[in-house]
Amino acid sequence: MDLPKSFDIQEIQSFDPPKRRLMGPGPSDIHPRISSALSRHCIGHLDPEFVKIMDEIKTMTQYVFQTTNRLTMVLSAPGSAGMEACFANLVEPGDKVIVCINGVFGGRMKENVERCGGTAILVEDEWGKPVDPNKVEEQLKANPDAKILAFVHAETSTGVRSDAEQLCQLAKQHGCLSIVDTVTSLAGIPVLVDAWGMDAVYSGSQKCLSCTPGLSPVTFSDKAVKKIKNRASKVQSWFLDMNLVMNYWGNGQAKRAYHHTAPINALYAMHEALLMVREEGLDNRWERHQKYHLKLKKGLENLGFRYLVEEEYRLPQLNAVFLPEGYEEAAIRKRLLEDHMLEVGGGLGAFAGKIWRIGLMGHSAREESVDYCLEALRKVMG
Amino acid sequence: MDLPKSFDIQEIQSFDPPKRRLMGPGPSDIHPRISSALSRHCIGHLDPEFVKIMDEIKTMTQYVFQTTNRLTMVLSAPGSAGMEACFANLVEPGDKVIVCINGVFGGRMKENVERCGGTAILVEDEWGKPVDPNKVEEQLKANPDAKILAFVHAETSTGVRSDAEQLCQLAKQHGCLSIVDTVTSLAGIPVLVDAWGMDAVYSGSQKCLSCTPGLSPVTFSDKAVKKIKNRASKVQSWFLDMNLVMNYWGNGQAKRAYHHTAPINALYAMHEALLMVREEGLDNRWERHQKYHLKLKKGLENLGFRYLVEEEYRLPQLNAVFLPEGYEEAAIRKRLLEDHMLEVGGGLGAFAGKIWRIGLMGHSAREESVDYCLEALRKVMG
Repeated sequence: MDLPKSFDIQEIQSFDPPKRRLMGPGPSDIHPRISSALSRHCIGHLDPEFVKIMDEIKTMTQYVFQTTNRLTMVLSAPGSAGMEACFANLVEPGDKVIVCINGVFGGRMKENVERCGGTAILVEDEWGKPVDPNKVEEQLKANPDAKILAFVHAETSTGVRSDAEQLCQLAKQHGCLSIVDTVTSLAGIPVLVDAWGMDAVYSGSQKCLSCTPGLSPVTFSDKAVKKIKNRASKVQSWFLDMNLVMNYWGNGQAKRAYHHTAPINALYAMHEALLMVREEGLDNRWERHQKYHLKLKKGLENLGFRYLVEEEYRLPQLNAVFLPEGYEEAAIRKRLLEDHMLEVGGGLGAFAGKIWRIGLMGHSAREESVDYCLEALRKVMG
Repeated sequence: MDLPKSFDIQEIQSFDPPKRRLMGPGPSDIHPRISSALSRHCIGHLDPEFVKIMDEIKTMTQYVFQTTNRLTMVLSAPGSAGMEACFANLVEPGDKVIVCINGVFGGRMKENVERCGGTAILVEDEWGKPVDPNKVEEQLKANPDAKILAFVHAETSTGVRSDAEQLCQLAKQHGCLSIVDTVTSLAGIPVLVDAWGMDAVYSGSQKCLSCTPGLSPVTFSDKAVKKIKNRASKVQSWFLDMNLVMNYWGNGQAKRAYHHTAPINALYAMHEALLMVREEGLDNRWERHQKYHLKLKKGLENLGFRYLVEEEYRLPQLNAVFLPEGYEEAAIRKRLLEDHMLEVGGGLGAFAGKIWRIGLMGHSAREESVDYCLEALRKVMG
């Protein structure tokens, strides 16, 4: 038998993570019920008991998205893969896609369109401002051959909310499908897939759902499914091809077709996270995010912080704020992390070094966390 | 505030999975140390403490693959995505790829080549037989413009091992890169990436590594990296683009670039799983798989089972066997699952309903499991 070479790994030990409090742009704090579900006994991905909870996950995901879409499921990869699943399935080579960019994640949508062989028509808005529906309408009119409108509901890079309902209605009026990023909005503020007429919607497991990172809930309207089923070319990703994935997640058929090995334990956690949303009720959950946002806001403003986003478009779950004058943001953030075990997020892209992003997502949106955060800030900035 | 619609989800409860023993083709039993790591406190994906364990995961993954390749990491999605990452990064539109098919997963490689715009030249062998190096050489000679040779080291659908060293050397002699599937082989039998001259190699977290399903260890040789960096076209997948992923996993640079949110808790489990391989030692681990395979084999043959694969090419960790005459496989498998909490795998594709696949992978490859399995079989078939 061949002898293995040795490597410099003798000193490595089991990892004991520090007990941070997560108040950045995600991941958020995980409730003990969810961690506990995560480590339950692993069973096979085709076990009848597992298939049963896949059905439950599907139904609860429909509830969280407020949709009766049959093609609703949780993908076995993070939100970035959820984004790619929507574009790779809906954009065919040559398709014109109107992409709204008002932060990092709109830019990533453009990348996705181009890598699928589509043409991206950009509607750009200043970072920190919502997508301007007038500009979108202008581009829809100027491009009657456009097939899709894509935008981010809640920009994680700036904490701004765009009007998803209005934008999806505009898309519909102009014969376009909509692709919507709800990574930061789902379960924190209303996301009403059916009522707003959204076509392809993806999110992540780790923000307002407060599940462990690594999964992506997605949903597709019947119109989107029709386009997927009638593509002239195959979906370029085998792993994310909804024609295959839908046979695994069950699409009315009696028997599920094996596609890949699902991340069993992560799906246990997702099941529990969705159950906690159901128990709390979506409306109560939205209200809770708003309530603690207002409390945090008052405290932050007393300390001299200033919000980036106008009140009307502000996300309660992601507070993008300028520090008061005279503070070096990176140094303070480091002290919060090291001395107070508190993670808040720095700025991304154009806002790197300029703003903080303080998250109040899922289990992190609670009284104790707001109090702790404000007290730590007083100590560090005092 | 909009009022959420209700759904038929009031009856759903927390999931308490049955305590199955996993002796199918994967996932395998998870050691309590790994489950325990999985549910540890979640921290941020850019936390300095997390970045530290990413480095440790990288080094231990190099050890398990027996490589000094700098581009070695664990992808945030299952082995199927690892396969796609290798093809999407290395195959450019128009590239000719020689694909060896001797089971389900070779067929999936062909799909991947075609979805990347490449042309697949097939070398087909009977299911249950290894890839024939003579046929491969013939095709390499007949196609001097071929860029890549792709094959599965250990076919999960049939339990057969092909000679990875010989095939990779053939590829090299003919100026081709090699893409190798080691999903079922890694950490169960020798996989010597550097010694055998393998170029792009992927695996899964959940078989002989016995970690929770959902991650994919991958490694790329310098020659493969050179091809990726010099592509004429962008990698069609943003999520799996190694040019981006390598900046997140650290490629000699001081600072990591944000790419996506890593599945933190799953990576805790991977860290622990790799640590357990290091503690045991790769050679001891290979020997353990062989030892319990021989014990299981003796018991199975006494019961009248017959191996599909010739001894020389048989995988110790995946025992593909025909049942003795007169038994209805699906009914017995159901009884094993329900009455004995034991999962063994059925056949895939051409072997559905004909063979069983009994796994002895990672933590499942132990004396107690073999004894339990044989005893359960005696009861059910007696």
